Amino acid sequence: MKINKNYLNLKPSYLFKTIGERCADYKAKNPDADIISMGIGDVTLPLCRTAADAMVAAAKEMGNIDTFHGYPSSYGEDFLLSAISAHYKNHIGIDVKTSDIVVTCGAKEDVANILDIFDEDNTVLIPDPVYPVYLDTNIMAGRKIKFISANEENKNLPMPGENDAADIIYICSPNNPTGAAYTRSQLKTWVDFATENNAVILYDAAYEMFITDPDCPRSIFEIDGAEKCAIEFCSFSKTAGFTGVRCGYTVVPSELTFDGVSLLDLWKRRQSTKSNGVSYVVQRAAAAAFSEQGYAEICSNIDYYRKNTANMMATFDELGLTYYGGCNSPYIWLKCPKGMKSWDFFDVMLERCNVIGTPGSGFGEMGEGFFRLSGFGDNDRCSAALERIKKVIPTL
Amino acid sequence: MKINKNYLNLKPSYLFKTIGERCADYKAKNPDADIISMGIGDVTLPLCRTAADAMVAAAKEMGNIDTFHGYPSSYGEDFLLSAISAHYKNHIGIDVKTSDIVVTCGAKEDVANILDIFDEDNTVLIPDPVYPVYLDTNIMAGRKIKFISANEENKNLPMPGENDAADIIYICSPNNPTGAAYTRSQLKTWVDFATENNAVILYDAAYEMFITDPDCPRSIFEIDGAEKCAIEFCSFSKTAGFTGVRCGYTVVPSELTFDGVSLLDLWKRRQSTKSNGVSYVVQRAAAAAFSEQGYAEICSNIDYYRKNTANMMATFDELGLTYYGGCNSPYIWLKCPKGMKSWDFFDVMLERCNVIGTPGSGFGEMGEGFFRLSGFGDNDRCSAALERIKKVIPTL
Repeated sequence: MKINKNYLNLKPSYLFKTIGERCADYKAKNPDADIISMGIGDVTLPLCRTAADAMVAAAKEMGNIDTFHGYPSSYGEDFLLSAISAHYKNHIGIDVKTSDIVVTCGAKEDVANILDIFDEDNTVLIPDPVYPVYLDTNIMAGRKIKFISANEENKNLPMPGENDAADIIYICSPNNPTGAAYTRSQLKTWVDFATENNAVILYDAAYEMFITDPDCPRSIFEIDGAEKCAIEFCSFSKTAGFTGVRCGYTVVPSELTFDGVSLLDLWKRRQSTKSNGVSYVVQRAAAAAFSEQGYAEICSNIDYYRKNTANMMATFDELGLTYYGGCNSPYIWLKCPKGMKSWDFFDVMLERCNVIGTPGSGFGEMGEGFFRLSGFGDNDRCSAALERIKKVIPTL
Repeated sequence: MKINKNYLNLKPSYLFKTIGERCADYKAKNPDADIISMGIGDVTLPLCRTAADAMVAAAKEMGNIDTFHGYPSSYGEDFLLSAISAHYKNHIGIDVKTSDIVVTCGAKEDVANILDIFDEDNTVLIPDPVYPVYLDTNIMAGRKIKFISANEENKNLPMPGENDAADIIYICSPNNPTGAAYTRSQLKTWVDFATENNAVILYDAAYEMFITDPDCPRSIFEIDGAEKCAIEFCSFSKTAGFTGVRCGYTVVPSELTFDGVSLLDLWKRRQSTKSNGVSYVVQRAAAAAFSEQGYAEICSNIDYYRKNTANMMATFDELGLTYYGGCNSPYIWLKCPKGMKSWDFFDVMLERCNVIGTPGSGFGEMGEGFFRLSGFGDNDRCSAALERIKKVIPTL
C-alpha cells in the first residue's frame, strides 16, 4: 500500500505547540506568575441561555422513546436550515434558499472537505498570512499553490493582479489573523476576477457577526455575480460560542456550475456519502441561537468581546503602536514595536507582561513582525493585561 | 476550475429513494395500510438513561461560564479515550492504548476520511455485497477497485484467493448487509494475507456488540499481527443507539507503518488539520454509555433487538426459508423465496404484507435475490410483521 506522499510535504504544525512549551517553561521557572492569554481564538463566554436551554431540552428528548431522533439528514434538519435562511434574510438582507445550505460540524471541516469535489489539477490562490488550514489541506492534495501578499501597503486586503490567475481562490473576510474586512467594491472586483478566470471563490465568513462597517458585506452573496462563482462557509463557533459544540454551514448556490456540473450536487453527494449529518442536540442549539431571543443574546456576547478589542485599540493608540483589525473583527494584528520579530516580541510579552499572544509568523511568511491578539477573553483580564503592556512597551 | 471528474462515475444512489417512492405510491393508493418497516438500519430505542442523563448534564455545563468547554481536542477528550480503552480491556479483553484511538463524529465519516492518507494509486478490495460507502468513496478518489464475492457457497464470508491481491482491503464483520461474522481463524488468514501483500485492512466493527459466538472476534486486534496491518472503525450508533447523536472512533496502532511512515501520525495530522473534534456533550454521552451502568443498559437494549432477530429466525425456520445472519448481527439476509429477484420480493412484501425491507441488490450485484431485514424495530411490531409474512409466504 502506498501512502499519500503529499502528507510528507506538510510542515510540522509547531505554532501552538511551541507557544505551549514556552509558556510551560516560563511557568516552571515562575510558578507564581499570573499569565493572561490573549492568544487563542477560542471563546470564553458560555452558550447563550436560549441555545443552552434548547440543547438541554433536546438531550432530554433523546432519552425518551416518544421523542428520540435517529439518523439526521446528511444536509441538516429543516428547522435549522430555515433558521439559517432566516438569518440571511433578517440580519444580512439577502435570500438564501434552504436547499442551497448544508449544515455540518464546523467551518474548518467544510473548508477542508469541499476540496474533495475539485480536481487535484487546479491552481489555488491563498492569501499570506491566513488561517493555516487553507494551505495544509491543499498540500495534502498536491495542488499547485500561489500566494497573494497581505501587507501594510494594501492594508492587509490584497486585490488581484495579472499574476494572480488561479482556479480556486480563498478569501477570508473578516480575515484571520489580520482582522481586515473587504468592502463591497473590493469584493465585487474579486467576483469579477473569479468570473473572468473561470475560478471558484471559497469565501470564509466565520467572523461575519463582528462586522460593524456597513460598507463591508457580511456575505459574499451580497455581491452581484457571486452566486455564479462563490461558495460561502459559516460557523456558529465565533457567532454563538459553539467552538465546543461544533456546528457550521456551507452555502453553495444552485446556480454555481462548472462544465455544466452543479457544485451543489457534488457537495451534497460528498456529504451524503461521507457523513451522516450533525448531532440532533447540536442542531437544536444552533437553531435556538438564531431564534429572535437567541440572536439578541449572541449579539450581546459579541458586544462583550468588542469591549476587549476597543480597549486594546485605545491602549495601542495611546502607546503609538501600529495595528490593524479590531473594528470588524475579534482580532488585533499588532505590528511588533521597534522592528522586533514575532517570536522575539512573544518572549517579551510572556516574560515581561505575563501575557500570551500569537506570533504572526505562524500564519505565513508575511506575518513575520506581527502579533495576533484576540478579543475573546474576559473584560477584566484584558484590562489587566493592557495595564501591564502599557508599562512595558515604553521601556523597549 | 476543474471539478473532480471521478464523481461523474458514481451511480446515483437510488436505493432508499426508490424504497421511499414505492412506499409513498402504495400509501397514496392505500391510505389505511398499517406499514411496518423492517428495512432501515436505524435504531428505535432511545438513548440509555445513563447516556441521556450525561448529555443533559453536559448541555447544562455548556451554559455556565464556570463549566463551559471550548474547542475539544481533535483526537477526543481524555475521559472518552479512557472509556473506550476500558471497553476494549473489560469487554473484549485486549489492550488498546488511548493514544492509538481517535474519536470522531461516526464510523461512516472515518471509513470515508481515512482514505485521505492513502495514495490514489492503490488497488482496493471490496466485498460484494457490502455497505455502499466503501465503493463510492473509492470511486470518488479514482482508485482501482476489485470485488470479492460473498455468496451462499462461502456462507457470505469470502476468503482471499490468489487473484485477490490488493493494497487496501475492506472487511466488515459482522457484515452489513449479510450479518455474517468471521471466525478467529478466518480473520487470521486475512491478516496473514494482508501482511504478505503489504496491504492495509480497513476493519469495520460497527456491529461488534451483536456478536455472541465466542469464536468470532469483536475486534481485529484480537488477532496476532493485526496491529501491523489493520485499522479498526467502531461506532456508538448501533452499540448505544447514537445514530442521531453521532460518535465513533478509529484505532490505528502505533506499530502500523508503511515505508517507515506511521499511519497513526498521518491520521492524526489529517484529523487535526481537517477537524476540530467532536461536540463535548456528545463525548460525555458516549463515555457514559461505556460506564459500568451505561454498559449494562446498552447491553439490555441490544438484547431487546436480539429478540426481533430470534423471532425472525424462528419464523423463517418454520416457513422453510433460507437465510443468513441474525446470530451475531442485527441483520437477517433472507434468500427471496421461489428464486424471486430482490425488487420483486420487495413489492410482494410491501403490497401483500405491508412490510418494508431492503432489496439486497442495493448492496452490490451479488445481493440480487436477497432481502435485508433489520432487527432494530419494536418487538410487538416485528411480531405483527412476522404474522403477516407467515400467511403470505406459503401462498407464493
